Amino acid sequence: MKWLRFTSKGKPGFGTLDGDAVAIYSGDMFGACRPTGEHVAAADIEWLIPCVPGKMIGLWNNFRAAAEKNGWAIPAEPLYFLKGANSYCAHGQPIVAPRSYDGRVVYEGELAVVIGKTASRVTEQEAPAHIFGYACANDVTAVELIQCDPSFPQWARAKSFDTFGVFGPVIDTAFDPARGDVVALLNGRERQRYPLADMIFPPARLVSLISQDMTLFPGDVILCGTSLGVLPMKPGTTVEVTIEGIGTLGNRYEA
Amino acid sequence: MKWLRFTSKGKPGFGTLDGDAVAIYSGDMFGACRPTGEHVAAADIEWLIPCVPGKMIGLWNNFRAAAEKNGWAIPAEPLYFLKGANSYCAHGQPIVAPRSYDGRVVYEGELAVVIGKTASRVTEQEAPAHIFGYACANDVTAVELIQCDPSFPQWARAKSFDTFGVFGPVIDTAFDPARGDVVALLNGRERQRYPLADMIFPPARLVSLISQDMTLFPGDVILCGTSLGVLPMKPGTTVEVTIEGIGTLGNRYEA
Repeated sequence: MKWLRFTSKGKPGFGTLDGDAVAIYSGDMFGACRPTGEHVAAADIEWLIPCVPGKMIGLWNNFRAAAEKNGWAIPAEPLYFLKGANSYCAHGQPIVAPRSYDGRVVYEGELAVVIGKTASRVTEQEAPAHIFGYACANDVTAVELIQCDPSFPQWARAKSFDTFGVFGPVIDTAFDPARGDVVALLNGRERQRYPLADMIFPPARLVSLISQDMTLFPGDVILCGTSLGVLPMKPGTTVEVTIEGIGTLGNRYEA
Repeated sequence: MKWLRFTSKGKPGFGTLDGDAVAIYSGDMFGACRPTGEHVAAADIEWLIPCVPGKMIGLWNNFRAAAEKNGWAIPAEPLYFLKGANSYCAHGQPIVAPRSYDGRVVYEGELAVVIGKTASRVTEQEAPAHIFGYACANDVTAVELIQCDPSFPQWARAKSFDTFGVFGPVIDTAFDPARGDVVALLNGRERQRYPLADMIFPPARLVSLISQDMTLFPGDVILCGTSLGVLPMKPGTTVEVTIEGIGTLGNRYEA
């Protein structure tokens, strides 16, 4: 099932994508819900973020190829930051260039894990039952901010400008995160293509390890980190993040 | 006005504190609301966090005395991290020692700013009208985690264990953050007493500067950072953070 949230004729709703149509549901996406029997054409909706995360966690240094190229040690445990809720941005919405920062802004094509059941100190074996599904993500980053103060790396700030937390278009409950590639196109030109199998801490391990420290709630999102091919965007650039099986998350970077 | 959220006989509610009584309100604390005419004794309620922040921002290095003692340069702009929503913890609730970390856990007595109106790129002059009020906070920190991986300071993780984001008991809309002290007692013994006037970026400047990057929404919380006197807690320790005019936030640290 591919779950999404949308507005149609000004009214919000959620449901599942079935080809060109959206089957509308009522209830709670993560709990009891059922189809209303109504449908709307996917071409007629405005996409919303597919869930509203209580928190969005982003991984740093979680792919072997990037670690090797950058000379980073393989981390002993997941290394992560948080992205502010103000940053959430849906498929098709503009990514807005900051007015308060004029350095490079990069896209990062990523796999997003969406939690389905409250997870506190779960084992790696228990973790998959706590994952609702997977989405595409673009972990947009004001990359020159991170190290601009030598005393304090500004991860939260660099990652949390409005519209920098892009994910969607759907949450796919059938996706197998052990296989497949993340592909990012910049104005139609392929700039990232990396295998999910190269991940250092795969989704079930991430959920298990992070849940030892922080309770994860339904709708919480973990961005699995990116690999090689990260580049700056210029206003007017379109970025598309495709994960075969899930779909394509497309956004334009605008001044 | 001192606003709070509570449960009474198992039912959640919100209202204002008037001496020993809570005047119950209906509606939206940050929007249209009015007293129902009902009251409940403050002694009979279970305190909840006084609002549910969409994000909690915490400042590092925001007091001159701490910067001087630790040899930190006065920062050119606010330096901050985010605390996960799982960490929120109310007055009277236990702060729970992590099971997945056995290093030092410290209290940090702080002033919390609660946003009342959506703030995007507001000036310092406009900022106060976007502040709803002020609360006491205890920015609990797993301090040895921050630098334990040399490649990536783990601020988000060290700050976001469950129950590490303590704030309340009320949001005081009349408090003047330009004066007064933050006082923290450990088992009744004074361990912190520092003047809010020593703040490097006071609340209105913080709101203005942070709102240049990230839209702040009603209920969002900014923890203003701490000063001297931070110490580890042992299980069984009670921490009380008092700001005269607002009240006292009291919690026990438990294994």
